[in-house]
Amino acid sequence: MSSILVLHGPNLNLLGEREPEIYGRTTLAEIDQQLAALAPELGVAVESFQSNHEGALIDRIQAVRGRIGAIVINAGGYTHTSVALRDALAAAGVPVVEVHLSNIHRRESFRRRSLIAGVATGQVLGFGVDSYLLGLRAAVNLAARGAAQH
Amino acid sequence: MSSILVLHGPNLNLLGEREPEIYGRTTLAEIDQQLAALAPELGVAVESFQSNHEGALIDRIQAVRGRIGAIVINAGGYTHTSVALRDALAAAGVPVVEVHLSNIHRRESFRRRSLIAGVATGQVLGFGVDSYLLGLRAAVNLAARGAAQH
Amino acid sequence: MSSILVLHGPNLNLLGEREPEIYGRTTLAEIDQQLAALAPELGVAVESFQSNHEGALIDRIQAVRGRIGAIVINAGGYTHTSVALRDALAAAGVPVVEVHLSNIHRRESFRRRSLIAGVATGQVLGFGVDSYLLGLRAAVNLAARGAAQH
Amino acid sequence: MSSILVLHGPNLNLLGEREPEIYGRTTLAEIDQQLAALAPELGVAVESFQSNHEGALIDRIQAVRGRIGAIVINAGGYTHTSVALRDALAAAGVPVVEVHLSNIHRRESFRRRSLIAGVATGQVLGFGVDSYLLGLRAAVNLAARGAAQH
Amino acid sequence: MSSILVLHGPNLNLLGEREPEIYGRTTLAEIDQQLAALAPELGVAVESFQSNHEGALIDRIQAVRGRIGAIVINAGGYTHTSVALRDALAAAGVPVVEVHLSNIHRRESFRRRSLIAGVATGQVLGFGVDSYLLGLRAAVNLAARGAAQH
Amino acid sequence: MSSILVLHGPNLNLLGEREPEIYGRTTLAEIDQQLAALAPELGVAVESFQSNHEGALIDRIQAVRGRIGAIVINAGGYTHTSVALRDALAAAGVPVVEVHLSNIHRRESFRRRSLIAGVATGQVLGFGVDSYLLGLRAAVNLAARGAAQH
Amino acid sequence: MSSILVLHGPNLNLLGEREPEIYGRTTLAEIDQQLAALAPELGVAVESFQSNHEGALIDRIQAVRGRIGAIVINAGGYTHTSVALRDALAAAGVPVVEVHLSNIHRRESFRRRSLIAGVATGQVLGFGVDSYLLGLRAAVNLAARGAAQH
Amino acid sequence: MSSILVLHGPNLNLLGEREPEIYGRTTLAEIDQQLAALAPELGVAVESFQSNHEGALIDRIQAVRGRIGAIVINAGGYTHTSVALRDALAAAGVPVVEVHLSNIHRRESFRRRSLIAGVATGQVLGFGVDSYLLGLRAAVNLAARGAAQH
Amino acid sequence: MSSILVLHGPNLNLLGEREPEIYGRTTLAEIDQQLAALAPELGVAVESFQSNHEGALIDRIQAVRGRIGAIVINAGGYTHTSVALRDALAAAGVPVVEVHLSNIHRRESFRRRSLIAGVATGQVLGFGVDSYLLGLRAAVNLAARGAAQH
Amino acid sequence: MSSILVLHGPNLNLLGEREPEIYGRTTLAEIDQQLAALAPELGVAVESFQSNHEGALIDRIQAVRGRIGAIVINAGGYTHTSVALRDALAAAGVPVVEVHLSNIHRRESFRRRSLIAGVATGQVLGFGVDSYLLGLRAAVNLAARGAAQH
Amino acid sequence: MSSILVLHGPNLNLLGEREPEIYGRTTLAEIDQQLAALAPELGVAVESFQSNHEGALIDRIQAVRGRIGAIVINAGGYTHTSVALRDALAAAGVPVVEVHLSNIHRRESFRRRSLIAGVATGQVLGFGVDSYLLGLRAAVNLAARGAAQH
Amino acid sequence: MSSILVLHGPNLNLLGEREPEIYGRTTLAEIDQQLAALAPELGVAVESFQSNHEGALIDRIQAVRGRIGAIVINAGGYTHTSVALRDALAAAGVPVVEVHLSNIHRRESFRRRSLIAGVATGQVLGFGVDSYLLGLRAAVNLAARGAAQH
Repeated sequence: MSSILVLHGPNLNLLGEREPEIYGRTTLAEIDQQLAALAPELGVAVESFQSNHEGALIDRIQAVRGRIGAIVINAGGYTHTSVALRDALAAAGVPVVEVHLSNIHRRESFRRRSLIAGVATGQVLGFGVDSYLLGLRAAVNLAARGAAQH
Repeated sequence: MSSILVLHGPNLNLLGEREPEIYGRTTLAEIDQQLAALAPELGVAVESFQSNHEGALIDRIQAVRGRIGAIVINAGGYTHTSVALRDALAAAGVPVVEVHLSNIHRRESFRRRSLIAGVATGQVLGFGVDSYLLGLRAAVNLAARGAAQH
Repeated sequence: MSSILVLHGPNLNLLGEREPEIYGRTTLAEIDQQLAALAPELGVAVESFQSNHEGALIDRIQAVRGRIGAIVINAGGYTHTSVALRDALAAAGVPVVEVHLSNIHRRESFRRRSLIAGVATGQVLGFGVDSYLLGLRAAVNLAARGAAQH
Repeated sequence: MSSILVLHGPNLNLLGEREPEIYGRTTLAEIDQQLAALAPELGVAVESFQSNHEGALIDRIQAVRGRIGAIVINAGGYTHTSVALRDALAAAGVPVVEVHLSNIHRRESFRRRSLIAGVATGQVLGFGVDSYLLGLRAAVNLAARGAAQH
Repeated sequence: MSSILVLHGPNLNLLGEREPEIYGRTTLAEIDQQLAALAPELGVAVESFQSNHEGALIDRIQAVRGRIGAIVINAGGYTHTSVALRDALAAAGVPVVEVHLSNIHRRESFRRRSLIAGVATGQVLGFGVDSYLLGLRAAVNLAARGAAQH
Repeated sequence: MSSILVLHGPNLNLLGEREPEIYGRTTLAEIDQQLAALAPELGVAVESFQSNHEGALIDRIQAVRGRIGAIVINAGGYTHTSVALRDALAAAGVPVVEVHLSNIHRRESFRRRSLIAGVATGQVLGFGVDSYLLGLRAAVNLAARGAAQH
Repeated sequence: MSSILVLHGPNLNLLGEREPEIYGRTTLAEIDQQLAALAPELGVAVESFQSNHEGALIDRIQAVRGRIGAIVINAGGYTHTSVALRDALAAAGVPVVEVHLSNIHRRESFRRRSLIAGVATGQVLGFGVDSYLLGLRAAVNLAARGAAQH
Repeated sequence: MSSILVLHGPNLNLLGEREPEIYGRTTLAEIDQQLAALAPELGVAVESFQSNHEGALIDRIQAVRGRIGAIVINAGGYTHTSVALRDALAAAGVPVVEVHLSNIHRRESFRRRSLIAGVATGQVLGFGVDSYLLGLRAAVNLAARGAAQH
Repeated sequence: MSSILVLHGPNLNLLGEREPEIYGRTTLAEIDQQLAALAPELGVAVESFQSNHEGALIDRIQAVRGRIGAIVINAGGYTHTSVALRDALAAAGVPVVEVHLSNIHRRESFRRRSLIAGVATGQVLGFGVDSYLLGLRAAVNLAARGAAQH
Repeated sequence: MSSILVLHGPNLNLLGEREPEIYGRTTLAEIDQQLAALAPELGVAVESFQSNHEGALIDRIQAVRGRIGAIVINAGGYTHTSVALRDALAAAGVPVVEVHLSNIHRRESFRRRSLIAGVATGQVLGFGVDSYLLGLRAAVNLAARGAAQH
Repeated sequence: MSSILVLHGPNLNLLGEREPEIYGRTTLAEIDQQLAALAPELGVAVESFQSNHEGALIDRIQAVRGRIGAIVINAGGYTHTSVALRDALAAAGVPVVEVHLSNIHRRESFRRRSLIAGVATGQVLGFGVDSYLLGLRAAVNLAARGAAQH
Repeated sequence: MSSILVLHGPNLNLLGEREPEIYGRTTLAEIDQQLAALAPELGVAVESFQSNHEGALIDRIQAVRGRIGAIVINAGGYTHTSVALRDALAAAGVPVVEVHLSNIHRRESFRRRSLIAGVATGQVLGFGVDSYLLGLRAAVNLAARGAAQH
C-alpha cells in the first residue's frame, strides 16, 4: 500500500483560530482526521507533518525520499518565497500536489505567485478543507499511475 | 436534485487530437461520459456545453441563471483574455469552479494569468481529466452548502 | 433627423439583476426607454442594440455605416480587451461617445485601460443611467457639428 | 437652492489663446457664462474659481465645505500630479465631477493618469465646453440625490 | 493539388473604405481575386474566409483540418488579443503564415505584440496587398515541403 | 533652549473632520496643544505651521534656517509628490523627522513612496497623534546630539 | 500589568560589531537593558527574544498568543522576504510595532519593501536605539487602548 | 531690443549656501549679475524672477506673454513634478531653454525625468553658472530667429 | 534597370555551419546565388555585402545612396541593438525590407525587439532562404513604385 | 595556517542523486574530499558545513567570525531569497566567494538574481565541481592578501 | 594653448542631407568650420573626427589621452547603446561635454536614455549647430579650470 | 597540445591606467604574461587578442574556429550590449568562459546583464587578474573534456 506525505507549512498549526474569515474554523487536527478517514477508502496511508521552519520541511521531504508515492503540500507563506523548498520538492522524485485553503488569486498580489507551482503536477485551491481532500484524491491517482509527471 | 453546468471553452472539442503531449488522449465526449458517470454518485445532474464563441458561452451562463447550483468551467484560451466571460460568471449567482487539464503555471507566461480566478471560488488544474472530476466534486459540495462564495 | 446608435456590450442585458451595488437597479429596457424619451427633445432618433458577441457588435457597427450621425457605446467587458471593436469604431466614420455606468477608475486595475478611449471623441462615466443620457447629449451635439472628431 | 462650485485649475485662464487646436477658441469667461446661463434652468447657482496655485484651489475647496452641493473640477495639470488636491476633494463631503476639455487618453502618456478620478463620482471628458455643461448636469443630479457617492 | 486557406479577421471586409491612408484602397474582393490569380501559377487552390467573429474563425480552422496544406492568416485586431485563435492554429497541424497589410511595429504599441507569431512559421507584414501575395508564396513552399514547422 | 519646527502639510487643518475613520477625531489645534505640553518636559520650544501651499511650506523652512534644532514634518499629500519640499528639507541643515498619522503602507499604492524619506533621519507613522509626540521625542534627541544626520 | 514582546531578527545579536557605521555601536544586550529600564516607567514588562531562524521567530509569536499586549519587532533581513512571519504577526491578535535602527529608505532598493508593514499598526525607523524606545512607547499606548488595530 | 525672462525655481534663492558640493558657492544674486553683464553684449535685456511657489512661476510666465523673446528656466524641483508649469511654458508662445546647474543624469533617478524637456527647444545642464550663461546665449539666438520652435 | 542592395549582418558568413537547427544548411554563397538567379526574372540587379562590423554596414549604406532602388537587410545581431544602423537606413532614402531566416518571435525575448522595424517598410521572417527571396520580391515592387514609404 | 569555511546550502546534501542532468553525479562528500585534497596544496585548512536551515547557515557564519580567512558559499535556493544570509556574510568581516555548480543565468529567471553577489568579492559559476575548486583558489588568494574587499 | 577634441558619431557625415527637418541643412564640414572659427576667439585649438565605427571612436579617444584638455562629443546613435564608448570616455581623464543637434527628449523613447550622460560633465542639446558652439564654450571653460569633473 | 583563445574587449588595453580603483594596476601585458606563464603548467598554449572593435572580436572568433579548444573572454563594455558577439561565441563550437576583473553585480545596473552569460559554460568575476587565471583553468578542464557544453 502506497503512502502519501501531507505537508503543512508555517502557521497552519493555528487553523481554526487564525483569521477564520479567511481560513475557516476547522483545526489542523480535524483536517488530518478527515484525511486519515479518507485514506483507507482510497487505498493509501497518509502521514502528516507541520512545521514553521522552512529547513524542517525540506529535511522531511528528503527523509521520505523513496518511501512515499506522492506529496500533498500546503506550504503557507513559504509558497511565495522559498526556492529552497521548491528545489527539495523537485528532487523528491514523486508527484507533488499543491493545495491552498483560500483562493490565493483573490488576496494580496504577493500571494499570487507560487514558486511551488512550477514543480507541482497540479493545484487545488480555494475550497477550504476540501482542497486537502481533493488534493489527496489527485495525489493517489498520480501515485497509482506510478509516474512522477514533473 | 441540483444541477451542475460544465462549460468547455474554445478548441476543447478537439481534445484527444490536439497536442496530446499537453492535453492527453481522452476526447471531450469521454470526459463528459466520465462526468455523467460520477454525477449520480454525487447526487447531481450534469449538463455540458462547448463552444468556440465567447458570446455563446456568456449566453449559456445567462440562460441557466436560477436553474443550476454551480458552474464548472474550463474556459480554454478565454481564461486569459475575457473580461466579458468573467463578468458573466460573476453575475451568475452560483459558485464557480475553474478547471484546467494542464498546469498553466508551467507553460507560456501569458497563460499564467486567469481573469476567471478572481470570480471563482477555487481552481483545480494540472491533473488532466481528473481536474474535471475533482472540480465536479468541489462544485457539488459548494452547491450543497447553498452559498455562492464570491 | 439624425439617428444615434446606442450599443450595449456583454452582460448589460442583465442590468438591474447583476451586482446592483455596482450597476444599480435600473434594467436595460428602462435605460432604453429613458434614452427614447430624451431623443425627440434633442431632435434625434435612437436605435439600441445589445449583444454578448464581440463579432455581433462589430457587424452592427459596420451595418449602420453612412446611416447614423454618432455612436454611444458601453462596451462592457470588451472595453478592456477588444482591438477588433476599436478598429470597427475607428472605421465607422462618425463620432464615438464612450459611456460607463460605474467609475472604472475605482475598480479592478484591468478595468482602468479602455482600448476604445483612443478612438472615441470623449467619455462619460460613473453616473449610472445619467452616463447614457449625458452621453446621448454629447453625441447629438457632435453629430450636429457634422464632423467626426477622431 | 443648491450651489455648485466650478473649479478651473492652472492655465485655464488662458483658454481661447493657448493651443487652440487642442483646447478650442472659447475663453474661460465664455465658459463661465454658458454655465451661468444653464444653472437657473437646472435650478442651481454656480460659483466659479480659477487659480494657478495648487494651494489656492485647496483653500477654496475647504472654504466652501458645508455650503455647496457638488463640485465640478477641471484641475488642469494638477489632475496628474496632486495628491493634496485629491485629499481636499475627498474631504469636501460632496460629490465631485471631474471634467476635461480634451480627451486625455489621446495625449501624452503622463496625462492618462488622473489622481482625482479615484475620489470623483464620475468623469466627462473630450467634448470641449460641453464637458463642463454635461458635468454641471451630472453634478446637479448628484447633489439632488443628496448623497456624495465617494 | 494542395489547398491553402486564407483567413481574414475582423473589419477586413471594409478594406478600401476603412482608413485608406493605413490600409490602402484595394478591397478585400480584389485581394481575393489577386490571390486566386496567383494560385494556379503556384499550383494550388485558395479558399478565403472573412469573419468579424473570433469563434467563427476558430470554427473554420477546425473545419478544414486534414483538408488543406497551409494557412495564411491576417487576424486583424484578434492578432493581439486572442489566445483562443492561437490555440486553434496550433492545433491545425499545418504551417501557418501570418500576414499584415501595415507594418504593425510602426503603429500603436498594443499592435506590436502578436499572439499568433508564436505558432506561425513566419510573418510577412507592411507591404499592403503584397503581404498576402508573398505570404501565399511562402505558404505554398511550406506546404510543398510537407512539414508543418510549428 | 533649542527650538523644534513642526510642519503640517495640506488638509491637516481639517483634522478631526476629514475622514475620521483614517485620521482620527483629534483636531490640529489639539495636536499642537499636546506637542506644546510635551515640549517643556523635553526641554525645547515648539513652533507649528500649517499650510496648503507647497511654496509656503518651503518659504517657512528657509525662514527658520539657523534658528531651529530639528524639523518634524507631516507633509500630507506633498509627501508623495514634492521634490521641491524635499530639496528645501535637505538644505535646512538640521535633522528631519517624518511623521504620518496613518500607516501609509496600508493605503493606496501612490502613498507608499515618500520623497521626503530620503532626506529624513527617520520616520514615525501609523500611531495617530502619537506619531507626532514620538516624532518630537526623536527630534529632540537628534537636536541634542547636535548633528544633522542627512 | 501588561507585557510587551520585543523580537529581534537575524544578525541583530551582532549589534555593536556588525557594520557600526550603519547600525551604531550599541550591543543588543544594551538595547534590551534600555528597554528594561524604560518598561516600569511605562507600567509594562518586556520580554525579549532574538533568533536567526525564521521558524523560531514564528514559534515564539505563536507561543505568546493571549499572554501579551503588543509586539515590537525588528525583523532584520526577514522584514523584506518573509510572508510566513507576516502571517504569524497577523494571527497574533495584538498590535504590532515595526522598528528599524537604520532608515531603510536610504539603503539598497530591496530593503525598501517591508512585508511586515502591511500587518503592523505603525513603524518607527532610522533613529538607532531610539527606534526601539519610541516603538515601546507606541506599543504600550496601543496595548493600553486594548485594541489591536490591524 | 528683445527681452529674455530668466526663471529660477524653488530653493534656488539658497544658492551658495545649499549643498555647495552639488550646486557650487555662487549665489543667485551673483548669477543674476553675470547674466545682466552678458546681456548687453548679446543685445538683449534680462529680467529675473525666483519663487518657491509653482503657481507664482506660472503667473509670471503668463504675465510676460507677448512682451519677451524667450524664456530661460531652471525649474528646480518642479522640473520633475509639474505638468502645470509645463503647460504654462507651452502656452507662452516663445522658445524655452531649460538649464540646470548640476548634471541631473548623475543624481537620484527621480531627477532624470524632466517634464519641461518636452516643451523646451533645448537643454544646457551640468556646467554650474555656465549653464545659465550658455542658456542665455542659446535663448538670444532662438529669439533672434523669431521663431518659437515648440 | 534598378539595383537592390542586399545586406547581411554579423555571423551570417557562417551560414550552413552555425547552429543549422535554427538557421538551416544553406550557405551565404548559396543564398546570394539564389538571389542572383531570381533578380533578372524580376528585372533588377542585386549587389550583396556581408560584414561583422556595424560601422562597415553603415559605411556601405551611405556609399550606395542615390544609386540603388531599395535595401533588403538581415542585420543579424545588430537588429536588436543598433540605433546607428537604424539611423543609416532612415537616411538612405529608399525603401527598406527587413528579413530574418528564423522566426525571431519564437526565440529569446531580446530578439523580439527590432530597432530596424521602425524604419523598414515591412518584414519577412521565419522562412529560411525564402525570407530573402520573398524580401527581394517585396523590395523590387517597392522600388518600382518609385516611392520610399518610410 | 589560515582556515577557509565552505558552506553548502539547502538540498546540496542530495548531490549526485538530485537532477543529475543539471547538477552532475558527484556527491557532496566527494566534493568535500576534493576540496580537502586541494587545501594543503594551497596551504590552508578547509571546514565544510551543509544545512537546509537558513538560520543554521547564519549561526555558523557568526560562529566562525574571527577564526577563518575567507568563506566559499554555495547558498543553493537561499541565494535568491535570503537578505538575512546576505547580512550575515556582510558582517563576517572576511572575503566571500560565491559559487554555483550550474550557470544560473541559463535557468529560470528567478535564479538570475543573487542577493549574495552584492556582498561577495566575486563569483565562480557553471563549472560543476570545478566551481568549488576554483572558488577555493580565489578565496585562498583573497585571504592571503589579508583584506576583505567588501 | 589647450586643444579640444570634437567627436562626431555615426551618420553625422550625412548632415545637411539626412532628415533635414530634424537635423537642419548645415553640413558637417560647415559645423567644423564654425567650430574652427570660434576656437581662436576662445584661445584653443579644435581637432575634429567623425566615424561610423564604434571602435574607431574609442581608438581615437584613447589616442589623444594626455594631449587634449576636453572632449566635445555627439555620439549619434551610439549615445543610446554603447557602454564601450562610455568606458572610453570615463578613462579619458578630461571633462566630457555631450552635445546633440536635436532635443532627444522629444523623439522616440529609446533616444531618451544616454549612456554617455553618466560620464559627461554636462549636456547641451536641441539647438542645432549652436549645440556644438555652446558645447565648445563649456568645454573650454572646463579645460581652463584644469579639472575633469567626472 | 590544445590551444586557448583569450579575448580582451574594448578599453582593456588601458588596464593599469584606467580607473585603477576599479580595475587594479596590472597592465594587460602583465595579465597576458601571467596567462602565458600558467599555460604550460596546464598543458596548453594561449593566444591573446584585444580590440576596441566589436566586429574585429567577432572576426577573430570566426577565424579560430576548429583550431582552439576553448575561449576565455572578457568582453568589457560589449558584455552588456552585443548580441552579435554572443552569436559569434554560440557559433564557435567550443566552451566559452566569461571573465570580469570587477564584480559587475556591485556596479551600475546596466552592467548586471550579460548577454554572453547565456552562451558561456560559466563565469569567473570579481577577482581582478585572478579572474583570468581561474578562467583559464576552467577553460582547460572544459577543453580536456572535449565537449562544448552549450
